[in-house]
Amino acid sequence: MPELRKDPVSNRWVIISTDRSKRPNDFLDQPVEKKKKGFCPFCYGSEDKTASEIIAMRPANTGRNQPGWEVRVVPNKFPVLRVEGDLNRRGDGMYDMMEGIGAHEVIIETPEHEKSMADFSYEQVQKVIWTYKMRCLDLKNDLRFEYILLFRNHGDAAGATLEHPHSQLIATPIIPKRVLEELEGAQHHYEYKERCVFCDMIKQEMKDGTRVILENRNFVSFAPFAPRFPFETWILPKTHNADFININEEQSFDMARILKDTLLKIKKALNDPPYNYIIHTAPLKKAYGASTHWHLEIIPKLTKVAGFEWGSGFYINPTSPEEAAKYLKEVEI
Amino acid sequence: MPELRKDPVSNRWVIISTDRSKRPNDFLDQPVEKKKKGFCPFCYGSEDKTASEIIAMRPANTGRNQPGWEVRVVPNKFPVLRVEGDLNRRGDGMYDMMEGIGAHEVIIETPEHEKSMADFSYEQVQKVIWTYKMRCLDLKNDLRFEYILLFRNHGDAAGATLEHPHSQLIATPIIPKRVLEELEGAQHHYEYKERCVFCDMIKQEMKDGTRVILENRNFVSFAPFAPRFPFETWILPKTHNADFININEEQSFDMARILKDTLLKIKKALNDPPYNYIIHTAPLKKAYGASTHWHLEIIPKLTKVAGFEWGSGFYINPTSPEEAAKYLKEVEI
Repeated sequence: MPELRKDPVSNRWVIISTDRSKRPNDFLDQPVEKKKKGFCPFCYGSEDKTASEIIAMRPANTGRNQPGWEVRVVPNKFPVLRVEGDLNRRGDGMYDMMEGIGAHEVIIETPEHEKSMADFSYEQVQKVIWTYKMRCLDLKNDLRFEYILLFRNHGDAAGATLEHPHSQLIATPIIPKRVLEELEGAQHHYEYKERCVFCDMIKQEMKDGTRVILENRNFVSFAPFAPRFPFETWILPKTHNADFININEEQSFDMARILKDTLLKIKKALNDPPYNYIIHTAPLKKAYGASTHWHLEIIPKLTKVAGFEWGSGFYINPTSPEEAAKYLKEVEI
Repeated sequence: MPELRKDPVSNRWVIISTDRSKRPNDFLDQPVEKKKKGFCPFCYGSEDKTASEIIAMRPANTGRNQPGWEVRVVPNKFPVLRVEGDLNRRGDGMYDMMEGIGAHEVIIETPEHEKSMADFSYEQVQKVIWTYKMRCLDLKNDLRFEYILLFRNHGDAAGATLEHPHSQLIATPIIPKRVLEELEGAQHHYEYKERCVFCDMIKQEMKDGTRVILENRNFVSFAPFAPRFPFETWILPKTHNADFININEEQSFDMARILKDTLLKIKKALNDPPYNYIIHTAPLKKAYGASTHWHLEIIPKLTKVAGFEWGSGFYINPTSPEEAAKYLKEVEI
């Protein structure tokens, strides 16, 4: 059973997966194995190689766990948190811990193994976004969960272990540290200004324009003022909305457009770099409705994070957001 | 001029080095160039290829910027912060910024290019530690600085750009975020318990023993209860001491022994992995003397950090510290 543990100094929780524990030999350098073409558990015909599907978008004439689906959600075969059990919060001397309860699901975004999200049709991206929403609506009912984190790893260096396009979702019994910091920072701004800090940011970015990359009816994408990483890009709904779960059909249409186009610009400008994207949204129970504002953060993996960054939380970014935005704005797609 | 910028949501500061700005082409994958043997700016005979030395440990019959030194400190040729200038704190709408003022120095740890710190003599490691102290004593006099971060990157994957053994030092005009979090967490514990959280931790670890790796008269090394990374290891002085700058000769002797031996165990157990180490110590001005406790954190770079970790600050660690400590304890050196 994996465990959640909290650093008593920084109050940072981590997952210790005791049953996936690696031995020193697992870490020794191996020559990179060239991926075999052929078998992929996420392709049509391999539906029985994953755990049974939770939901899928599929035509009415196709059966559960059969080919024909357009987007398919399955439990992660190697979950970092487990759905079954109780939290069992407890102490060991000065330390605190609880069981690693949560949900860990895989959203298989398309049957087309070779495509990357930047090459999807807008309709396909919209289906993925709508699937995210459906899963959040369902998992919200499990009262053990405090937060749902949706994210996507693209490329080996960004942590993707399977090539077939997919996102992941982890529902956690605590609000993760970085999310909480953001929520509290936004709350602080709200108490001081009586305005949402993200709304303020959107206004200033759109007025200033130097960091804006794309914009449509409902969304804007820009390079944030103080990015941790080169070409870090955020996508936000222009109108205040704390919770991704509230996205409506028109908004999901516009979100699909800006997400695909932003990813395509990054792909073209940077030669298909590895990246992560993450959706930050309101927590499931604690109310931050007025002060927070859901958004998606894209982090291309272009630099190595070294001792200084880990030790200080003080990132060194060799590219200004104004330049990054300028490059991305100018790339034709 | 590099700039410091603060994320208005999380209050996180970053450095934007506008004059070292990279273009998309800099990030395109290049085949890894095999390092040419031969020229190294940190070897004997290349003293004129670095900036002029700040201090060096060298026999009295050798001259400044000449061969013969044992440890040599020079300004970083590509500093992320600059020594000259004023902070010039200012705003741009809702955003805050200041100039990137600071010191960035390189501690060349030995003339022996091929050696790794795990293979140094105890005496050589002690000289490095004493040099750290000397630099801190000097930089403390510059009233623009709030913090001095000492760190070491070993191996390309951990961010080392030159093979020759060296550490780095960055003096910053703000207390870095992760350091501040730690200081505030420790302060919180102190207010509640009237005890140092690190002292409490040392007592529990030494009583429990399952995570302890090495111990001598003045120091202990152990795998922390809630590590972010596999085989993460901390070294702490057993007696309360907030500030590394106070290290005395006896302590530097014992610190050298435990540091070299811990690194050698990691090298042997994990086949010379890339790693970072970082010294966390008290800030230069703000007083945390009773609540904090200086220490060195070793982070082997064995896993990839993916979207989930970046997005949540919620690290997934596949190896429990009890197992990591057991392996390291058993490795013969």
